[in-house]
Amino acid sequence: MIFVTRKSHFNAAHRLYNPEKSDEWNYRVYGKCSHPNWHGHNYTLEVVVAGEPNPETGYVIDLGKLKQIIEKVIIQRCDHKNLNLDVSFLQGVIPTTENLVEAFFNELKEPVEDAASDGALLYAVKLYETERNFAEYCPYSRI
Amino acid sequence: MIFVTRKSHFNAAHRLYNPEKSDEWNYRVYGKCSHPNWHGHNYTLEVVVAGEPNPETGYVIDLGKLKQIIEKVIIQRCDHKNLNLDVSFLQGVIPTTENLVEAFFNELKEPVEDAASDGALLYAVKLYETERNFAEYCPYSRI
Amino acid sequence: MIFVTRKSHFNAAHRLYNPEKSDEWNYRVYGKCSHPNWHGHNYTLEVVVAGEPNPETGYVIDLGKLKQIIEKVIIQRCDHKNLNLDVSFLQGVIPTTENLVEAFFNELKEPVEDAASDGALLYAVKLYETERNFAEYCPYSRI
Amino acid sequence: MIFVTRKSHFNAAHRLYNPEKSDEWNYRVYGKCSHPNWHGHNYTLEVVVAGEPNPETGYVIDLGKLKQIIEKVIIQRCDHKNLNLDVSFLQGVIPTTENLVEAFFNELKEPVEDAASDGALLYAVKLYETERNFAEYCPYSRI
Amino acid sequence: MIFVTRKSHFNAAHRLYNPEKSDEWNYRVYGKCSHPNWHGHNYTLEVVVAGEPNPETGYVIDLGKLKQIIEKVIIQRCDHKNLNLDVSFLQGVIPTTENLVEAFFNELKEPVEDAASDGALLYAVKLYETERNFAEYCPYSRI
Amino acid sequence: MIFVTRKSHFNAAHRLYNPEKSDEWNYRVYGKCSHPNWHGHNYTLEVVVAGEPNPETGYVIDLGKLKQIIEKVIIQRCDHKNLNLDVSFLQGVIPTTENLVEAFFNELKEPVEDAASDGALLYAVKLYETERNFAEYCPYSRI
Repeated sequence: MIFVTRKSHFNAAHRLYNPEKSDEWNYRVYGKCSHPNWHGHNYTLEVVVAGEPNPETGYVIDLGKLKQIIEKVIIQRCDHKNLNLDVSFLQGVIPTTENLVEAFFNELKEPVEDAASDGALLYAVKLYETERNFAEYCPYSRI
Repeated sequence: MIFVTRKSHFNAAHRLYNPEKSDEWNYRVYGKCSHPNWHGHNYTLEVVVAGEPNPETGYVIDLGKLKQIIEKVIIQRCDHKNLNLDVSFLQGVIPTTENLVEAFFNELKEPVEDAASDGALLYAVKLYETERNFAEYCPYSRI
Repeated sequence: MIFVTRKSHFNAAHRLYNPEKSDEWNYRVYGKCSHPNWHGHNYTLEVVVAGEPNPETGYVIDLGKLKQIIEKVIIQRCDHKNLNLDVSFLQGVIPTTENLVEAFFNELKEPVEDAASDGALLYAVKLYETERNFAEYCPYSRI
Repeated sequence: MIFVTRKSHFNAAHRLYNPEKSDEWNYRVYGKCSHPNWHGHNYTLEVVVAGEPNPETGYVIDLGKLKQIIEKVIIQRCDHKNLNLDVSFLQGVIPTTENLVEAFFNELKEPVEDAASDGALLYAVKLYETERNFAEYCPYSRI
Repeated sequence: MIFVTRKSHFNAAHRLYNPEKSDEWNYRVYGKCSHPNWHGHNYTLEVVVAGEPNPETGYVIDLGKLKQIIEKVIIQRCDHKNLNLDVSFLQGVIPTTENLVEAFFNELKEPVEDAASDGALLYAVKLYETERNFAEYCPYSRI
Repeated sequence: MIFVTRKSHFNAAHRLYNPEKSDEWNYRVYGKCSHPNWHGHNYTLEVVVAGEPNPETGYVIDLGKLKQIIEKVIIQRCDHKNLNLDVSFLQGVIPTTENLVEAFFNELKEPVEDAASDGALLYAVKLYETERNFAEYCPYSRI
């Protein structure tokens, strides 16, 4: 089993806010991350595909094609956008790193697996909100 | 002459927008950076102090004190904030990296030089908007 | 299953030395790492928590709280300290990266899991002694 | 179970080219990566060993010895070389990152496990072709 | 005076070889860097423009335009190429980092200054051959 | 004028302590950095040489030779050592980053300039105590 990863970047605004709760609840839970005028991040996204290399090409997936899929599915919809307001597939999602990484995985699964070698799988998606805070979603990990 | 640098980080929202111009002008000049719902960045700030080390301490400036000054003067006012709306000393400033770095220098000059060794100067301020785009203000550089 | 990580830093002195062995044995096994006047490192620590996000907050664990726990349990006891002499929970431990990472995991497990969402677990602790040498302890990994 | 990693670097030329296929096929599949005059990379290699620390030394493997093994087995044969032309164990291998990482694992397995503590295993090999494109081979991972 | 920088990347093959000298001379001077089958690097290029921000835009230069100029003038001609064989403006140049950085500066000067604000100058070009070896050309620096 | 830089690393223990002052003075000035049982750092050292490339070699200085000089003059004397106790040329020097960088410059000047092309100079030495705190000594900079 070989894991190939492509790293991408985008810059976005967001705030952490649960609209079903009061402002006090949100400030108590999220602190400065709930600031109503927004803040933002340079997000770094890693997309991991697992599979066996195609014997003719030596590729699990053409990383140039993977780059284009990430560009189309995630970057063009999130880069220089407001993650609470502008992104259709994030409507109703509180944009914590945990929730973003799962939503990105679900958007990427079908187009990535269509472009990969036979039997290859989207294995994990990792998102860095800052260099020090990051989350990974991997449905195949078990404890 | 010795140059000491302290690096800090903050996360903020902004947009590039000149309110004296039309929306078309702004979109033509700034493109996606003028997106009305904001976007944001993990900013990295470097503050450079130049001078001779104090012979008793070996310090041009105590970098712990420099950290506190940067924290008070810049980070607490900009971190998890909107640079167009929330920061008093940036009112009327289009928040390009070029303009930010000059504004930060002017805020930092007096408190930094008060804390440094005799004759030491705030020499430069460098700001990374992304790992690939950054600006430096250094009034002592000449061409 | 989502994995969230918080990265922290501390600076410490240490030497590799097994007091039950002779100085020759130590020098033969550890070389310059057994230097009696100590050496030191900028350690980078990554703490990984695994779980499901709390549906109200979107958090597996509040990374601000995780930062405070790491600060209290590890950083305040190890930063600017001597790992052989000064740290109570490292008494009798040869401070190789392998041994440190397991000791840190054991110190962090209870307070981290108390602060995480229901059912979340301290999953792994990773420690970089240098950018090129690092160790990870993950009791849930199997071969 | 503890995982220790040593990171190394080498610089090499290569091209992606399947000699059993036409030049058109190669250009269609590999694009600029099949450029006949070669291109090259600064490769970063991570070698991961899994095991229990030896109780006398606190080491899963002496990372100094691991460094020497990587140097002898991989770096001296690949650094400042052409991966298509110069490396005996890569004859017949299309040098995609996927294929390289599996070939490196196979070369490293025996000497690394001979040098590690009892029962320790070469667990994974990770290779960065660029900061944004990398592959990992881990025969113990299952989906 | 404000300095703005844009960082870019390309991957290329090269060898260090002075064709006016014997193979022995080349091997003695350049060692493994003269290997006849080439080697290669992930080059990182930083382009620095100095000037005053345009008061209407807040830009010394639109970094999006600067990116396009670097792409057209340097990246498209050097990326996935052989620097000894494929690049017209490097004919007759021994591709040391020192020589490359001066050649890149000369190619970039006119198009960059045409795109910058009034009076702004191409100030410096910095090229990293590896993370540990790099060169900078700055015709305005004096000793 | 071209500036070439070589980056190196070493790991050392130190404490900040002025032996001509009382323990209270030292603790008040240096805080945890004066801890009597030492602490340590992974230091990163950058050595900058300025000059014109030799027309036959294209080198301001052979970076392989520069690496060897840094290794001999600085790394072998400081790596895995105690900077307060073990290094002859640092006797009587309080090992702040400011003082270290000037001492390193003075040790390197003669051997580096002997190895460089005609007229080339050791231009600057930069030392990172941590990724966030660093100092540069450049006797040719003027304000």
